[in-house]
Amino acid sequence: MSLSKRALAELIGTFWLVLGGCGAAVLAAGFPGFGIGFAGVALAFGLTVLTMAYAIGHISGAHLNPAVSIGLVVGGRFDARDLPAYIIAQVVGATLAAGVLYLVASGNPDFSLAGGMASNGYGEHSPGGYTLQAGFLLEVVLTAGFLIVILGATDKRAPAGFAPIAIGLALTLIHLISIPVTNTSVNPARSTGPALFVGDWALSQLWMFWVAPILGGIIGAIVYKAVAGNADRT
Amino acid sequence: MSLSKRALAELIGTFWLVLGGCGAAVLAAGFPGFGIGFAGVALAFGLTVLTMAYAIGHISGAHLNPAVSIGLVVGGRFDARDLPAYIIAQVVGATLAAGVLYLVASGNPDFSLAGGMASNGYGEHSPGGYTLQAGFLLEVVLTAGFLIVILGATDKRAPAGFAPIAIGLALTLIHLISIPVTNTSVNPARSTGPALFVGDWALSQLWMFWVAPILGGIIGAIVYKAVAGNADRT
Amino acid sequence: MSLSKRALAELIGTFWLVLGGCGAAVLAAGFPGFGIGFAGVALAFGLTVLTMAYAIGHISGAHLNPAVSIGLVVGGRFDARDLPAYIIAQVVGATLAAGVLYLVASGNPDFSLAGGMASNGYGEHSPGGYTLQAGFLLEVVLTAGFLIVILGATDKRAPAGFAPIAIGLALTLIHLISIPVTNTSVNPARSTGPALFVGDWALSQLWMFWVAPILGGIIGAIVYKAVAGNADRT
Amino acid sequence: MSLSKRALAELIGTFWLVLGGCGAAVLAAGFPGFGIGFAGVALAFGLTVLTMAYAIGHISGAHLNPAVSIGLVVGGRFDARDLPAYIIAQVVGATLAAGVLYLVASGNPDFSLAGGMASNGYGEHSPGGYTLQAGFLLEVVLTAGFLIVILGATDKRAPAGFAPIAIGLALTLIHLISIPVTNTSVNPARSTGPALFVGDWALSQLWMFWVAPILGGIIGAIVYKAVAGNADRT
Repeated sequence: MSLSKRALAELIGTFWLVLGGCGAAVLAAGFPGFGIGFAGVALAFGLTVLTMAYAIGHISGAHLNPAVSIGLVVGGRFDARDLPAYIIAQVVGATLAAGVLYLVASGNPDFSLAGGMASNGYGEHSPGGYTLQAGFLLEVVLTAGFLIVILGATDKRAPAGFAPIAIGLALTLIHLISIPVTNTSVNPARSTGPALFVGDWALSQLWMFWVAPILGGIIGAIVYKAVAGNADRT
Repeated sequence: MSLSKRALAELIGTFWLVLGGCGAAVLAAGFPGFGIGFAGVALAFGLTVLTMAYAIGHISGAHLNPAVSIGLVVGGRFDARDLPAYIIAQVVGATLAAGVLYLVASGNPDFSLAGGMASNGYGEHSPGGYTLQAGFLLEVVLTAGFLIVILGATDKRAPAGFAPIAIGLALTLIHLISIPVTNTSVNPARSTGPALFVGDWALSQLWMFWVAPILGGIIGAIVYKAVAGNADRT
Repeated sequence: MSLSKRALAELIGTFWLVLGGCGAAVLAAGFPGFGIGFAGVALAFGLTVLTMAYAIGHISGAHLNPAVSIGLVVGGRFDARDLPAYIIAQVVGATLAAGVLYLVASGNPDFSLAGGMASNGYGEHSPGGYTLQAGFLLEVVLTAGFLIVILGATDKRAPAGFAPIAIGLALTLIHLISIPVTNTSVNPARSTGPALFVGDWALSQLWMFWVAPILGGIIGAIVYKAVAGNADRT
Repeated sequence: MSLSKRALAELIGTFWLVLGGCGAAVLAAGFPGFGIGFAGVALAFGLTVLTMAYAIGHISGAHLNPAVSIGLVVGGRFDARDLPAYIIAQVVGATLAAGVLYLVASGNPDFSLAGGMASNGYGEHSPGGYTLQAGFLLEVVLTAGFLIVILGATDKRAPAGFAPIAIGLALTLIHLISIPVTNTSVNPARSTGPALFVGDWALSQLWMFWVAPILGGIIGAIVYKAVAGNADRT
């Protein structure tokens, strides 16, 4: 399939990821008495990936995440020449989703951008007040684990067809652990969308949510290759 | 299989969707100290579709939703001549379910129709007070995404057998995002059942929950066809 | 496989269902500040069936429920001559589980049988105070839907291997709706185990949780056969 | 594949189990107003196993648990000569994860080791104050059930590819029942990692979380063999 169609699929999928995950966080997490809390947000993020991996996996692979695309290059599963188109599409999709979310959320008289629109942060902008060091370490380790799950579940020796379940629910798991620390990125595109609307601290802390996930993605791919031997794409 | 049997299956499946989703909302969401909240309602709606898609998918396709049936016509997966029977069956099933739910719920001395029986609404009848514009936009976008997942997960290039999981959990995801905004429709039949019992504002706002989901379903089908190329039914 | 081994598998599976579902309700639902609530109990009940259906489905079919076994006879999927052994094994397994749960729960100084050990009830023993009529209607309708999902998901035209997911999560869905009404039975064996320990009102209301689920199971099987035509076991 | 690579996979997988499960408990369970509670922790533990079973099941079998490895030996599915390497790798992985979790958690000014880092305990160190006897009994019974699910879902007569879902969600179920009683072990490696950091009572109670799960694992394997007849590995 043409790169432009595959990139368009990535744009749509990453739009869904940010609208779904950040939307659940902004609109539903804290609803008085009925809020879905961090567990509901974790489920939402994971289900965006699970659903899109079944919907467009056969078109683009459904990376939806620059750290995943880069990790897949390192793991030998994706062609580096397609990286720029994928990453641009992912960031554009994430930004469009943040825009739609802004339009919806601002339809509530109590909405304020000061709430952060689910932007990622550390230090005083970590939900639980965790340091930069703690957040960086956790983002690296969790993205590394995410890539191990992605590379393993799509290994041709793994059962066919189940990878979207494993990968989507891995993202749920990652959020169940780390929302209090950084609001959970493991995905630079997901971090960039809301940060462009919030500006200010969200933009000035955005560097970390490109560096740590990409570093983690590379580490995860190297580890998987070392353990799994001659793994191959399914 | 005959159209009458397929329509009967749609009636049963949509009955299950409304009894399960609206039932969870009305009976269990706000139970003091143990309530399932919006996350539990989101899970219930999704599981109605997941379970019925495995149970009757081989009979009727388990659309359970006029916006889905129309989107599938646009996507080239469903014959427009069967639309009227499907949509009528879906609305009848939803209405019967609302009736059973009314009988059960009114078996509690504290029940009142003023609680809304999980009807969809905007403005002052949005759970979180969101405007008509915000609700309309979100219903359109989420139904479009729903159809992309439906068309993609049932594409013959997607892994076989997993579509009910992807589609059911997409509906859970959609509810995790949007219950605070409109109580979540994305399904005109689901909106119509409770509204017929609540009457009043629920009926006067019902138009939106036919227009926005159907518009979204059409858009989603067009987008999927544009991205996926010569997709075909599994 | 011999009837005695299949009955033993049913005993083990129903033990797991009651220990897991009622155990979650008694031990974890109301833990201050961290309780799993009705949604967690609903998930626990469903996962007992999902896990045992994969573990022993190939041995006994994993009915774990007299209403299911009877519904499967009506649906033409199970031999009526095996019913007595299955039902006895299911009730024994449920009772043993209630015994183990009693031993564990009474290891907490605050435990009291007056809490009901997750027994099913109506009227003043309904968690939300629902009438006998409301509870009876809902148990019948939900068990009928449960049998439709079971017969449909194991129909040879449905995708193979997924039935335990559909059936287990159907039980989760059923609990998300109906715990406030009757504490959710849809399973006479599950109701009998705890009632034997609680005695008193739980035993005097136990009749309903044999009559309503069995009636619902029969109705569901008849409906599925009417809709699905010449369905057959996978 | 070489034993060293398989052991390395076990190390990575058990690292993920402890980082994910205990991490969710320590970092996110009690977050004010948004905490994931025991249900979220239960989901996290289960998803660590589900995801790693798809990711590295084809490398090491993804036991991630000494009680599972021993039960698989008893069940005739694993070679006893590989036990030492597996168990050492599992304990090392769990300990490394506890170390990373300690580094992250201590990046919050409110963190204290006195919180227990999700260590397992009984008596005054049981979350709900349950006795040693209650905790021991429940750990034995739940680990036995866990092994029955593992041996059954990987039986060659069970549907292929679904075992990670059944096994992962069995661990979620087990946690939904038993976190209030012992904080849930069923896994000696998972208990050892945090205990080494907490020391004190966690170390002095650690014996039970080796003895009870291993005893349960052996019982479960014997029961499954008795019921299932000539079961065989898939």
